[in-house]
Amino acid sequence: MHTDDLSTPALIIDLDRLDANIDAMASVRPGRTLRSHVKAHKCTELARHVAERVGSDTFCCATVREMAGMITAGLGTDLLLANETVDVGRLTGLAALAGEHDARVTIAIDSPETLAAVVAARSAGPLDVLIDVNVGLPRCGVLPIDAGSLADAARAAGLEVRGVMGYEGHVVGNPDRAWRVEQVAIAMDLLRRAHDDVGGEVTSAGGTGTYDLHEWAAEVQAGSYLLMDTAYSALGLPFQQAASVLATVVSVNREAAYVVADAGLKAFGMDHGEPTVVGHTLFFTSDEHATIIPSSPDALAVGRRVTLRPGHIDPTMSQHERAYVVQRGEVVDTWPIDLRNW
Amino acid sequence: MHTDDLSTPALIIDLDRLDANIDAMASVRPGRTLRSHVKAHKCTELARHVAERVGSDTFCCATVREMAGMITAGLGTDLLLANETVDVGRLTGLAALAGEHDARVTIAIDSPETLAAVVAARSAGPLDVLIDVNVGLPRCGVLPIDAGSLADAARAAGLEVRGVMGYEGHVVGNPDRAWRVEQVAIAMDLLRRAHDDVGGEVTSAGGTGTYDLHEWAAEVQAGSYLLMDTAYSALGLPFQQAASVLATVVSVNREAAYVVADAGLKAFGMDHGEPTVVGHTLFFTSDEHATIIPSSPDALAVGRRVTLRPGHIDPTMSQHERAYVVQRGEVVDTWPIDLRNW
Repeated sequence: MHTDDLSTPALIIDLDRLDANIDAMASVRPGRTLRSHVKAHKCTELARHVAERVGSDTFCCATVREMAGMITAGLGTDLLLANETVDVGRLTGLAALAGEHDARVTIAIDSPETLAAVVAARSAGPLDVLIDVNVGLPRCGVLPIDAGSLADAARAAGLEVRGVMGYEGHVVGNPDRAWRVEQVAIAMDLLRRAHDDVGGEVTSAGGTGTYDLHEWAAEVQAGSYLLMDTAYSALGLPFQQAASVLATVVSVNREAAYVVADAGLKAFGMDHGEPTVVGHTLFFTSDEHATIIPSSPDALAVGRRVTLRPGHIDPTMSQHERAYVVQRGEVVDTWPIDLRNW
Repeated sequence: MHTDDLSTPALIIDLDRLDANIDAMASVRPGRTLRSHVKAHKCTELARHVAERVGSDTFCCATVREMAGMITAGLGTDLLLANETVDVGRLTGLAALAGEHDARVTIAIDSPETLAAVVAARSAGPLDVLIDVNVGLPRCGVLPIDAGSLADAARAAGLEVRGVMGYEGHVVGNPDRAWRVEQVAIAMDLLRRAHDDVGGEVTSAGGTGTYDLHEWAAEVQAGSYLLMDTAYSALGLPFQQAASVLATVVSVNREAAYVVADAGLKAFGMDHGEPTVVGHTLFFTSDEHATIIPSSPDALAVGRRVTLRPGHIDPTMSQHERAYVVQRGEVVDTWPIDLRNW
């Protein structure tokens, strides 16, 4: 099927660009030096594609649902929930699933409460833990000075502590590479000191914006490199925007200089700003529409297709139930976005 | 089940508030003077609740998928697709479904191309049309001066033209009521002139922000009144925010004055700004998290629940697969958000 025959709005993944991104990452971060992040796409078929193309078998997730889906899909060799939860019910279900599928599941913890939730769930199946350390982003993570005692408590409860993670999310999006280098060093100094107290073989950090700036951490957690977005593209990284939303012009105003296409707020994550329109200019978006200024007055008649690129990939993916995988205009596969919701 | 036992993030609909909103609307716009808009919630069970509570049996939708779901749910007495499409395949399926279920389906058109799509689909089942007129919003709608000739062309093609619609979307969100009154009059003067040329019994306009300002139009299309959001709440309308997202505190930073809850960008429509946190202050949101400044240092321990209210309801609903219907803290029903996607 050609993309011209797709109903719209349709989420498109350009396979050649995706593969170029996977290869560019693997050239710097081969094998287990990358832990590919599932939260950026929420699609087991995309994760499987990464695993098959470059042999990566370690992944991280942001939700228990993502973890469970990856295990069920046979991608549970070494899965990290790089996020905190105190949902004992969900963790218990995850532990049982890990046992059934012989998956290795590691849960980030940053407090006595998140440790207690893992301890409570662990009778149902195998769960290891990793200490999530705050390295500067105002979000999750134990203070570096408290990391060692949390690891001690986990070991005292009979858990294997695999190591530490720290996400420098306050650094990854800054376009000044020299500043990123400097800030990664500061963040990793904090993580290294925590690791001295925690031990374990895993040292996990980073994101797409700092994928090539980590020397000390053994693995980088990155997901946006796969599909990218207009926000990340401003950083000059060697990854291309591989996801877009195909839309159809459904209305043309013959007096004013605009047309209307059938992809709007419900087709995009909007927190990093408006989508861009390839070859034309976005005027504004509303729930179901993009109002567009065409490059020339007659460029976009009713029925013409337009391609929009999302400002932020993660919440764009979660608005779609499937992605069409496209190569040179032909739809070669359809991948369900099966790991969205909770 | 109490809301304390829900896994989070969970989309909550407060039933008493919803019912108060339905009643407040019905007191001004009873029966068919309201055409309740499904796009704002994408949930057939919510639409059914409106129909059962106040006897409304006319609805409008923004997508063919919403239309099809409403017909299948037995809510197809008088359904308007208040949006343009040239997707003959989807329209053909819709026409066939309308025939099977004896539903009345009307499609908005604003061009020869959108008319041709309806004509092409009509052999599969009954479809009427309505002329969508541009009344000032830079989006869909034929120019008022062209409305009559489009209606003539539709009738020449054997279609029933039910009348006109015009959405003054540039007016509905302005907090100055006097300005809204003035602008509705200007917009409705345009629509009235188009209706003079088009004819038909349907004159449809408006939105939640102008629900009580229409004198000429026979029916108002409104959807946001049901669940509301923080953006619409700024208008001082007699509708309450009935939707929220319940989240759990998963991390507390003992040094800084913030906590982290498990609802983020993927749980909210963000185009009208950040969600608000009931009783506390939002610091920022990221994909899976809300970082929150508690009202007092010890107010939010790990495991505590927080309630967040969305800035914009429509794209918030489309990020969730179900809503929990809650009355005085108890979950009394679960409604699938079954009409999202395309």
